[in-house]
Amino acid sequence: MSRLTLGIDLGGTKILALVIDESGNILKRAKTKTKIQLGVEGIGRQMRETAEKALKKAEATWDAVREAGVAVPTSVDPETGDVLHAPALGWRNQPARATFEKIFGRSILLENDVTAGTLAECRAGAAKGARTAVGYFVGTGLGGGVVIDGRIRHGKRGVAGELGHEIIRHNGKRCGCGHRGCVEAYASKTAFCREFRRLILDKGKKSLLTELSSDKKLRSIKSSILAEAYRREDSVVCRVLNKGAWMLGVATANLYAILAPDCVVYGGGVMEALGPELMPFIQRGMETHLFGITAEDTSLRLSALGDDAVPLGAALLARDAVTE
Amino acid sequence: MSRLTLGIDLGGTKILALVIDESGNILKRAKTKTKIQLGVEGIGRQMRETAEKALKKAEATWDAVREAGVAVPTSVDPETGDVLHAPALGWRNQPARATFEKIFGRSILLENDVTAGTLAECRAGAAKGARTAVGYFVGTGLGGGVVIDGRIRHGKRGVAGELGHEIIRHNGKRCGCGHRGCVEAYASKTAFCREFRRLILDKGKKSLLTELSSDKKLRSIKSSILAEAYRREDSVVCRVLNKGAWMLGVATANLYAILAPDCVVYGGGVMEALGPELMPFIQRGMETHLFGITAEDTSLRLSALGDDAVPLGAALLARDAVTE
Repeated sequence: MSRLTLGIDLGGTKILALVIDESGNILKRAKTKTKIQLGVEGIGRQMRETAEKALKKAEATWDAVREAGVAVPTSVDPETGDVLHAPALGWRNQPARATFEKIFGRSILLENDVTAGTLAECRAGAAKGARTAVGYFVGTGLGGGVVIDGRIRHGKRGVAGELGHEIIRHNGKRCGCGHRGCVEAYASKTAFCREFRRLILDKGKKSLLTELSSDKKLRSIKSSILAEAYRREDSVVCRVLNKGAWMLGVATANLYAILAPDCVVYGGGVMEALGPELMPFIQRGMETHLFGITAEDTSLRLSALGDDAVPLGAALLARDAVTE
Repeated sequence: MSRLTLGIDLGGTKILALVIDESGNILKRAKTKTKIQLGVEGIGRQMRETAEKALKKAEATWDAVREAGVAVPTSVDPETGDVLHAPALGWRNQPARATFEKIFGRSILLENDVTAGTLAECRAGAAKGARTAVGYFVGTGLGGGVVIDGRIRHGKRGVAGELGHEIIRHNGKRCGCGHRGCVEAYASKTAFCREFRRLILDKGKKSLLTELSSDKKLRSIKSSILAEAYRREDSVVCRVLNKGAWMLGVATANLYAILAPDCVVYGGGVMEALGPELMPFIQRGMETHLFGITAEDTSLRLSALGDDAVPLGAALLARDAVTE
C-alpha cells in the first residue's frame, strides 16, 4: 500500500486528519483538539501526530505518504501558496508552509478550508458532476468557495470566494469585518447570537436559549443547542434563523445573476444541524430574487460529505498539485 | 484582401457595423438607425446593408467576409447560441440566428452586447492583458459582462454577467425588473431619471434639467445633457449621479469578494460622457467596502474602445468560433 495522501482540516478548535488512497477513497480518520498556544511549529507536530494515528488505523506507515494537504481558516496567497496571517489560529507573519514541510518531510499544499470543502463536494459530494459550483459554509462566520470549470477560483491575493462579505444590504447590520450589510451579518452564528442578545437580553423576549445555553451571556451557542430550540419551535430562534436563511437566499440569487453556477452547496455546523429545516427558507429567499432564470434551472443542495469535505478537498488538491 | 470578419452592434436605436482583418484591426465602420418595426427579417437586411457600406469603405467585397458576429441587447442561450426574446427590439419567440444566417449566407455568432464589449476590452482595450475581468456598461440600464481566464462566463441559460441585477440593498429602491435594491436601481439612466422626477417634479428642487432637457417630463435624458448639467455643477444632477457611482462602487467591492478579478472596466453612454468625473466616486465607494484586499490590488478602468467595444467583441468571438 503506497502513494497515500493526507488531508488535514486545521481549525481553531480541532484538527481532523484523514488518509486517502490513489482512487480518492477515505481509508481512516483521526481527530484532536487544536492547542493554539503551541504556535505554528507545535501545531505542525500536532498535525503530524494526528495524521500518524489515522495512518496506524489504516495499517499504513509514514513511508506510504506522498504528500499532504492542509486546509486553513484564512486566505491562501495564490502566488506563494502560503499563509502569513490566520487570526483564528493566532498567527501573524508566520510562513506556515515551510514549517509544515520540514515537520512532515513531504510537500504540503495549503488551501482555504471552505474552498477545499467546496472542491470536495464538486468532486465527490453533493455537487458531483457540476462544472461550476459555489459553496456556503455557515458556522461562526459565513465562509465561501467558488469552483469554475472544475478549478478553484482564487483571484487576486486569494480573496475570491469571500462570499460572506458580499454586501446585500448597503448600510444594513454591522458585520464583524467592520462593514455594514454583509450577508455574514445575517447568516452566521455570530450574527444569530448578536440578534439573540438584542432580543432576549436587551428586549426581554422569552426564549428556550436562556435555559438551554450554558453561556448565559449568549456570546457563543453550539449548533446542537440551536437545533434543539429550533425544533421545539422557540419563536426567537426560529425567527432569527429563518431570516438569516432568507438573506442567504438573496445572496444566492445574486450569485446566479453574476455566475449562474450549476449548483450551490450549503455546509458548516449550522447546516449540519438544521439543514432540512433551513433549506426551504434559503430556497424561497433565492426564488423571490432571481433574475432571468427560473428556479427549475437552479440547484441548491445540502453538503453530502459533512466533516470530511474540508480535509478530503485538501487531500485531493495536494494530489493534483503533485500530479500536475 | 480576404478572410474579413464583420462585427455588428444591434441596438434598439442604432446598428453599428465594422470590418476587421485577420489581425483584428478595425478597417472601417458604418452606422444606421434601427427600424424596429421591420421585425427580425427586416432588421437582418438592415444589418447586411450597413455591413456592405462598411465593406465598401474598406474597398472590400462581400466575398471576402468569412463570418459575422452580432451583439444583441439580451441574453444568448449558451446551448443553442440563439436569442428568442429581445424586449429592446420587440422580439418574442423569434429564432434570430437562422434568419440572419440566411440573409448573410455566412455563419453568425450571437452574443450579449455588454459581454461582447467586455471581451473586446480584455483583448484590445482597457483590460488588455487581464485574464479575468468584469465589465459594467452604464446606459438606460446597467449591463454586465464576466470574462474568466480569457473566456466569457455564460452560465446556466446564459444569465451569468447580469451584474445590474445584483441586489446590494435588500428592500431598497424598486428596479425595473420588479425586485428591490438591484444596483441598476441606483446606477442607470432609468434610475437617474426616476430620482430627477422625484426631486424636481415632485419635490420642486431647482435644476438645470428643466431648461436643458427637451423631455420636460424627464422620462429620458441624453447623456450629453446629463454631462452638461453635471459640469455646470447642478446640485440635483451631481447628487444623483455621484450616489449612483458610489453604489456601483459597492457592487464592485462585492465582485472583488466573489471573484477578485484582475480588472474592472466601465463603459456605456453615461461613462463615455462623464467617466473622469464619476470614476472617483466609484473608486471611493469600492474602497470603503473592500474585504481582504487593498485598493492597490484592484484596478478600475474606463473603457478604452468606446462604441467599438461591442461590435469588435462580436467580431472577435465570431472569428474564434470559426477558428475553433
